[in-house]
Amino acid sequence: MASINVSLQVIPRVPGDDVYPVVDQVIDLIRGSGVKYEVGPMETTMEGELGQLLELVKKAQEVCVAAGATRVISIVKIDYRPEGVTIDEKVGKYRK
Amino acid sequence: MASINVSLQVIPRVPGDDVYPVVDQVIDLIRGSGVKYEVGPMETTMEGELGQLLELVKKAQEVCVAAGATRVISIVKIDYRPEGVTIDEKVGKYRK
Amino acid sequence: MASINVSLQVIPRVPGDDVYPVVDQVIDLIRGSGVKYEVGPMETTMEGELGQLLELVKKAQEVCVAAGATRVISIVKIDYRPEGVTIDEKVGKYRK
Amino acid sequence: MASINVSLQVIPRVPGDDVYPVVDQVIDLIRGSGVKYEVGPMETTMEGELGQLLELVKKAQEVCVAAGATRVISIVKIDYRPEGVTIDEKVGKYRK
Repeated sequence: MASINVSLQVIPRVPGDDVYPVVDQVIDLIRGSGVKYEVGPMETTMEGELGQLLELVKKAQEVCVAAGATRVISIVKIDYRPEGVTIDEKVGKYRK
Repeated sequence: MASINVSLQVIPRVPGDDVYPVVDQVIDLIRGSGVKYEVGPMETTMEGELGQLLELVKKAQEVCVAAGATRVISIVKIDYRPEGVTIDEKVGKYRK
Repeated sequence: MASINVSLQVIPRVPGDDVYPVVDQVIDLIRGSGVKYEVGPMETTMEGELGQLLELVKKAQEVCVAAGATRVISIVKIDYRPEGVTIDEKVGKYRK
Repeated sequence: MASINVSLQVIPRVPGDDVYPVVDQVIDLIRGSGVKYEVGPMETTMEGELGQLLELVKKAQEVCVAAGATRVISIVKIDYRPEGVTIDEKVGKYRK
């Protein structure tokens, strides 16, 4: 299957005020998965097969809870085209 | 596993200008799945097990393409709590 | 100017675990504004002039902070067409 | 007022299949405004005063229509804290 893009923003509810350590563990999960990804200020965009990326989205919920979150709101964006979508086609020219 | 909420907005690119027939087929997919759901002006919210709902999100992409879309952007929101989340706890009092 | 649709989801960070009282105050703000609106499980959709609705989105941030939030993440969706967009064209047939 | 972050994704409906020229004009609008910004694969994140950034979001709708869009769906994320939010606090460590 062609690779497509999925962006994930997790908004964990944690005791105390600092959500970044929980977000970092989700980014660690993504890094460890081997998919291509890019960290942005409000979301991390991944490139891979849709089923694989949604599986990471699912695991991210468990990672947040294991890291201390009592609730997690996630915003997920899918950019899907049967022949594939790449991060590079969208930001390549802005990174030169 | 506890039921949680997932909202799905599909934004299909179709030849011509009318996206509603494609969106209707996604709502048909959700209705046919048997999960509890509520259609809103910008998204449909589902209640069920996370893996099952993400599987519907995945199938929705294929439904859009089968209905003529050449590309689909989807906005997915997940409201996750280990002990569960319900549509009713959020809108119940506004529906009386 | 034609009326269009804007959906707003506020995700306030509050001491303690209950965000619903803060969300309720945002819905009160919208109700008090006189615009047409519909409360959904993950967002409230408004119908009105774009500038007016974005002004409500801006005020919603201050309402959350006044209600005790230390930080607010908001997800806003705009459905814009020069000739206007209505809630009814999107959900009318699902409400009969 | 403190600077905060607003991310903007525009999804224009255009005759033909290529949305990137329209998206580029929105990025040109943001660049021309003088606010700090960062282009990502699914959204552009801006840093500035909330009112100013929402004004850019509003103008972006008109830019899309002037560039040929017949309809525009926009996804806007606001990260608001009375004392301010920066892009750097969120991605700084991932850019070294």
